[in-house]
Parts: sequence; C-alpha cells; structure tokens
Amino acid sequence: MNASVITGETRFRVRYAETDQMGVVYHSNFIVWFEVGRVELLRQLGFRYRDMEEQDDCHIAVVDLRLRYKAPAHYDDEVVIRARLKNMRESLLHFSYEIVRAADNTLLAEGETTHIVVNSKFEKTQLPEKYRQAFAAAVDK
Amino acid sequence: MNASVITGETRFRVRYAETDQMGVVYHSNFIVWFEVGRVELLRQLGFRYRDMEEQDDCHIAVVDLRLRYKAPAHYDDEVVIRARLKNMRESLLHFSYEIVRAADNTLLAEGETTHIVVNSKFEKTQLPEKYRQAFAAAVDK
Amino acid sequence: MNASVITGETRFRVRYAETDQMGVVYHSNFIVWFEVGRVELLRQLGFRYRDMEEQDDCHIAVVDLRLRYKAPAHYDDEVVIRARLKNMRESLLHFSYEIVRAADNTLLAEGETTHIVVNSKFEKTQLPEKYRQAFAAAVDK
Amino acid sequence: MNASVITGETRFRVRYAETDQMGVVYHSNFIVWFEVGRVELLRQLGFRYRDMEEQDDCHIAVVDLRLRYKAPAHYDDEVVIRARLKNMRESLLHFSYEIVRAADNTLLAEGETTHIVVNSKFEKTQLPEKYRQAFAAAVDK
Repeated sequence: MNASVITGETRFRVRYAETDQMGVVYHSNFIVWFEVGRVELLRQLGFRYRDMEEQDDCHIAVVDLRLRYKAPAHYDDEVVIRARLKNMRESLLHFSYEIVRAADNTLLAEGETTHIVVNSKFEKTQLPEKYRQAFAAAVDK
Repeated sequence: MNASVITGETRFRVRYAETDQMGVVYHSNFIVWFEVGRVELLRQLGFRYRDMEEQDDCHIAVVDLRLRYKAPAHYDDEVVIRARLKNMRESLLHFSYEIVRAADNTLLAEGETTHIVVNSKFEKTQLPEKYRQAFAAAVDK
Repeated sequence: MNASVITGETRFRVRYAETDQMGVVYHSNFIVWFEVGRVELLRQLGFRYRDMEEQDDCHIAVVDLRLRYKAPAHYDDEVVIRARLKNMRESLLHFSYEIVRAADNTLLAEGETTHIVVNSKFEKTQLPEKYRQAFAAAVDK
Repeated sequence: MNASVITGETRFRVRYAETDQMGVVYHSNFIVWFEVGRVELLRQLGFRYRDMEEQDDCHIAVVDLRLRYKAPAHYDDEVVIRARLKNMRESLLHFSYEIVRAADNTLLAEGETTHIVVNSKFEKTQLPEKYRQAFAAAVDK
C-alpha cells in the first residue's frame, strides 16, 4: 500500500440489531459497513454519492463481492472501516476494504467489491469526467 | 372480529439474520413482518401492492405504528402473520396484525398501523376507486 | 421537558441499506435507531448496556412500542436521535425518543417504548440497585 | 452438476424492506438468502440447523464469501434460492448457491461460502459423525 493513498475511514459502534444468536455480528452486515466506508471515501475525494445519484444519474452498482472473515465483531464494539479505490477502468470500479476493532486494532474482515457505473435504468454509462479525474488520482497504486 | 372478515395470512420461518444476541428475533423485524402480512392481505383482495405503486402511483406510507410484544420468536420457528383492514376513511388506512407461532399458536405480538395514501412525491392523494371499493368491502366491521 | 433532564444523543448518517424503493428510510429502521439512542442514554448515565447484559445478566426486553412518523428521512441525511427515560417503576422502564434531521432540525419521528427487566432466560428480574439509583435520578420529571 | 445431487431449494417473495432507493434489492440481502437456502439444504439432509446448534453445540461459521450479481431483484418478485454442498474436508464446509427469479428463471446471483465448524465459543471443533456421513453423501461430485 502506498503511504499517500487516500482512505475513506469511518468508525461507529456495533448496533444490537446487527448481532445474531451466536452473540456476534451477523455476517451480512459487513457488506453494509463496506458501503458506509465506500461512501466516506467518495466524500473524502470531494463528492457525495447522493449527488452522484441525484444530479448526475450515476450509480455504482455492485457486480462482484468478496469477503474474508477474520474475527467476530461484538455488540457495542467500536469498529473502523477503511475503504480504498484499487482500480478504475472504463466504467468499472474496484474497491478494497478492511474492518478492524478500534480497541485493539484486530482485523475483523477484509474484502473487495467491483462495481459498474449505471444510470437509474441500470444501463451501463460513463463516469462523468469530474469523478474520473478525482478517482484516478485516488487509485491505490 | 367478524367471522367473514378477510385476513391476509402468510407463514414463513424465522431467519438466522433476524435473531439477536438475546437468542430471539430482534424486535424491529416484527415491523417488517407486519408489512409482509399487509401485502398479502392486498393480494387476497385482488391487488398487488407493486402494481398500486407502479401503475397508479399510489403508496401507503405509514404514519403511526403500535406494537405489543407478547412472547419471543426463535430462530427457525414457523410464524404466521395475520393482517386485517380495520378502518378506511378518506386517504387514511388502519390495519391490525397478529403474529403467532405456528407450532402451538402462541401469540407473539399484535399491533396496528395507520397509513396515508401518497404519490411518489409524498403528496397526499386519493385512493383510486377500484381500491376504495375492494377495501371498503374488506373492512373488519 | 425539564431543562436539566439527561438525554442520550447520537448522530449518524443514514445508510444506503436503510432506504427502500420509495427513496426514503424504510420505517422499521427507526426502531433500530431508537435503540441506538437508548444505549447512548445509558452510557451517559455511566453504564454500558453490554455490561448490564454480560456482568449483571440484566436485559431490558421491549414489551410495547409506539411510533409516529412525521417526515421521511433520506439517504445520507445526518440524523440526531434523542432518548429520555420517562418513567421507572419496579422492573418497568419507559423511554421516549425523538429523531430529527440535523440540517434543519425537522422532526422525523417520535415515539415511546416500554421495557421489562429480564434475565437471559427471559424471566422477570429486579434491576440491580446501582442502575436503579442512576435511573431514578435521570427520570424526566 | 450431477443430476442426483441434493439441492436445498426455497422460494419466497422479495420484501419491501429488502429494497433500496435504486428500486432493487439491496445487495447484502442476497447473503441472508444464501443462508436461508443453506439451512433448507440441511433440512433436506435430515437435520435442523437449530438442533445442530442447540443439541450438538455445532455452529458453521462463515469464513469466506464470494458473490457475483447478475441481474437486479425487484420487490414482490418470487425468488428461488438453490444451495449445494460443494465440498467437505475436516471441519471445512464449502457451499455454492444460485438465486433465480421464479417467473422467468433469470439468474440473479451466484456465489460460494466457506465455513468452519466451531462451538459456541468459536473454537474449532469436529463435525459429529451423523452430520459427517449425511454431508459426505450430499457433496456435489
């Protein structure tokens, strides 16, 4: 990882609703957290994903997702989500993520998602130039 | 309750994702189940809520919700959701619900929701006549 | 409301996962947010709900819930959850909540929940003295 | 795929709560559906996952997950989840899944999960013999 790479970082506490009867966070919630990190990364690049959708009819739909669970997350744990843009090519965006427990920096999960840029009708579209440039500069080389 | 009242009834198994670390269904999921029952009631009246939204731009937005929890629901329990239309007035709809465990008919929860009819911009609108008539006939007098 | 009343206040952004196809937050998520506010209130009183469960086998199970929806919440909105303890009697706890949009202080929803104190087997139990005292002082008179 | 392979098949309708503001099912819900399919596969092999947990303290914790999204799922769509056991080795279980829209058999998503068998303290454990034999016979060779 390049030291200068831009990372979207968010931290919040695990909600009770996110646990399951094993006493840990139910595994699909990590996917929700990935997205929270992804959106914070965009915000750090100067964009609100909300505006991308509303103003530019530009949506980044997930097409591929990979996740490796390393350690369970518990209720009320403070977790840190870090998201990075790994690659961008045409209308394909590739992000990577890691989720750590804030208290002891234990890695809880890591993963990657691939997205295509689509309009609100789910038709493949071009990423507008302003995003393209900002994203290109943020790619984790 | 009138014996001839129309009841939307659905049954399904509790999902693992719906449990929490107390080992029971997390309480907000009952609200999701209420909706599943509500939609089945509409289907039984001859309508798909999906069509109400897509074809008639007619959405029933919840404005008030009341829920009494009677007994915990457990993972893999088969639950039965029963929904009834209690009242209809102008663009106000009032539904009631009960959730029971199929195995022993234990009442798990009961509640009511009030809805207003709105268009996709959340502006109050009239319930189209075809719904109004079918709904009026279904009201639990 | 007493100016000196203790209020648990949390703020966070609406997640994409919390929206539905009406373009607003799906209504059951407000229940999850109520809980986030409730837990922050306890933290402000000096307790972690996690410890109440783990160390004192003391769980506050919801038995009644009431919610009035005032205005829709949107994706990426920053929302503020405020929770107060309205009443405490034996092993009954009564909380009230309001959810506002941070940007313009619009009230999005308000509601109340009633809880009983139970052990991990869902048997009614006494609230340990340390909680009882702190809670009594926090009741919104 | 072997024609005689045992497949856990479930079908249900997409819930409104599962949609997001793009008007399609939010992507983390497919993970929840995978699990519903996995549990039905176990049931078809003669076991309830609930009993595995309660009676044999035997939990199958996910360690790796892969998902490819092919087409969006919509509200009220009837979806079919098919789960198969791809491989079993020591305390590792490898499942594969496909999710199709019932109406036209369109493939919506496919994926794989890897699980380890653990006890309630998340310590690696052996799969009891009765499961091992039934699972071995069900592996999709």
